[in-house]
Amino acid sequence: MQNSTSVFKLSIIGFGAVGQGVAKVVQNVPQLKVVAIADSKGVALMPDLEDVLARKRAGQPIANSDLTALDVIRTVEHDVVVEVTPTNIDDGEPGLTHVREALKNKRNVVTSNKGPLVAAFSELTHLARTQGVALRYEATVGGAMPIINLIRDTLAGARVLGIRGVLNGTCNYILTRMAEEALDYDQVLSEAQDMGIAEADPTYDVTGIDTACKVVILANAFFDRNATFADVNVTGIDRITQDALQLARQRGFVVKLIGDVQELTVSPKLIPLRHPLNVSGTLNAASILTDTAGEITVAGKGAGSIETASAILSDILSIMRSRD
Amino acid sequence: MQNSTSVFKLSIIGFGAVGQGVAKVVQNVPQLKVVAIADSKGVALMPDLEDVLARKRAGQPIANSDLTALDVIRTVEHDVVVEVTPTNIDDGEPGLTHVREALKNKRNVVTSNKGPLVAAFSELTHLARTQGVALRYEATVGGAMPIINLIRDTLAGARVLGIRGVLNGTCNYILTRMAEEALDYDQVLSEAQDMGIAEADPTYDVTGIDTACKVVILANAFFDRNATFADVNVTGIDRITQDALQLARQRGFVVKLIGDVQELTVSPKLIPLRHPLNVSGTLNAASILTDTAGEITVAGKGAGSIETASAILSDILSIMRSRD
Repeated sequence: MQNSTSVFKLSIIGFGAVGQGVAKVVQNVPQLKVVAIADSKGVALMPDLEDVLARKRAGQPIANSDLTALDVIRTVEHDVVVEVTPTNIDDGEPGLTHVREALKNKRNVVTSNKGPLVAAFSELTHLARTQGVALRYEATVGGAMPIINLIRDTLAGARVLGIRGVLNGTCNYILTRMAEEALDYDQVLSEAQDMGIAEADPTYDVTGIDTACKVVILANAFFDRNATFADVNVTGIDRITQDALQLARQRGFVVKLIGDVQELTVSPKLIPLRHPLNVSGTLNAASILTDTAGEITVAGKGAGSIETASAILSDILSIMRSRD
Repeated sequence: MQNSTSVFKLSIIGFGAVGQGVAKVVQNVPQLKVVAIADSKGVALMPDLEDVLARKRAGQPIANSDLTALDVIRTVEHDVVVEVTPTNIDDGEPGLTHVREALKNKRNVVTSNKGPLVAAFSELTHLARTQGVALRYEATVGGAMPIINLIRDTLAGARVLGIRGVLNGTCNYILTRMAEEALDYDQVLSEAQDMGIAEADPTYDVTGIDTACKVVILANAFFDRNATFADVNVTGIDRITQDALQLARQRGFVVKLIGDVQELTVSPKLIPLRHPLNVSGTLNAASILTDTAGEITVAGKGAGSIETASAILSDILSIMRSRD
């Protein structure tokens, strides 16, 4: 980066919590320039970031052009499309079209959107390769907790034999409070909803769908599985009883919703109290079993707009560095 | 790496447990060629790795030349000097001279030896920069637990505000068993010595010296401190009482020997039972507090010849990639 004096141009496609987080964190990096922001209502070209963030907070429109998100991706000259529209696991849209068009137009893509990767991982990674651009997605798994780039870069000397993770903060929060305060599932879920930790409709989290999407992404990235959501055997936490948790605790275990990437399973599993995967609250954690480095566990905040934006920024910087 | 067809040439300077581990792990990477191995008795040029490993195991000499380690570093054409002689914290030698001469001869250096970095961090990093070569030292802190490259590469998008770590497996093993089995320090130390987890002379570990060296390296690498060992305020675990551990436990804490990089301190500290730094046995762990990614904790095996060699290999591969 020190060698680079040229500016790296970005678009931000999707301007919810994560997109706004990206707009905040990129302001700290002088070499980055946001040339367009698209929200569901329209496109702001050459936006003043402080101004669009203030407009968004005030519920005012940010659009200053007649372009659509796809127009930006196809026609505005820039280096990286930051695709941060909401995850849609049915068909991956609109993210899938955004990512595909960006790659076709030889733009690098950084995304936090699991939808396109769960729907069309092989197609998209193949397209990126043939177009000679990067497709990076650290933020899709574990928020600020590094895992994809950790394995790819930092653990490059070791072969990955397995990955198991606590990959959903909502589930982990519910299980932690149930175990530690002997509360029932419904009561903790309801409080988590009041606190904004669980969604009004918590299905996507508590039935294990979100974790399964992350398992698919990791399996495709590191085990060449070409898996989709349908390949994952999924059991959520919505039928966990207080009895089960107490029995586990008496025997020196906690119950965690574990995504097992090698097995392509998501289910509540017993984890020894002393194991580093036993993280509490909304934390995420992943254990990477390797041939030569043993088991490496990483833990961090799995959600949050700034935290997710931080993972996106690390991907953007990595692309910048590889270009220098 | 896929693009590289040329061979990357290494020397291994020091052929104890870690050096032998390096000889084992590099055999899995066809692009790497070991052109010389030096042990305390002499130098093997163009060694057959299986043969020198077998000779070492049998207590036979490996040398097949009249060269010294310094001759190899200065005169044999190669890309990376892997400096893995034992750590000497008094003056850093002989590692310091090895590293300095390697850099002067424009060879990249990868090391697990804390001595040179604690004695002369600024000189060596400056020399590497002016010579246009890499000096990498992931293996000096935390063995296979990634921390230096994790911060430098994977967390590049965030600013590091602080680093705290459980950085010595011997101390962590002793504290874990004292706390969980209500055993006294002397008893656990003696058993750890029998098991080979603690050295016959455990001073370097239990008085906190080893942890302090790691704190110095991290402080210099990430906080521009230009610190040496004398700048660290060090308290070991050798006066910890059973009472202190039990009192902590009753209040929901464990006692861990914590290296605090920002503070330049090493001392036993209270860590909440639920905190990810609460790892047990010989595990190491480090928590990295950042501005945007929150607190990231990583845990893994802090020692072991193959584990340390794995960290060295990741550094070598990183240098190879940046050359491509």
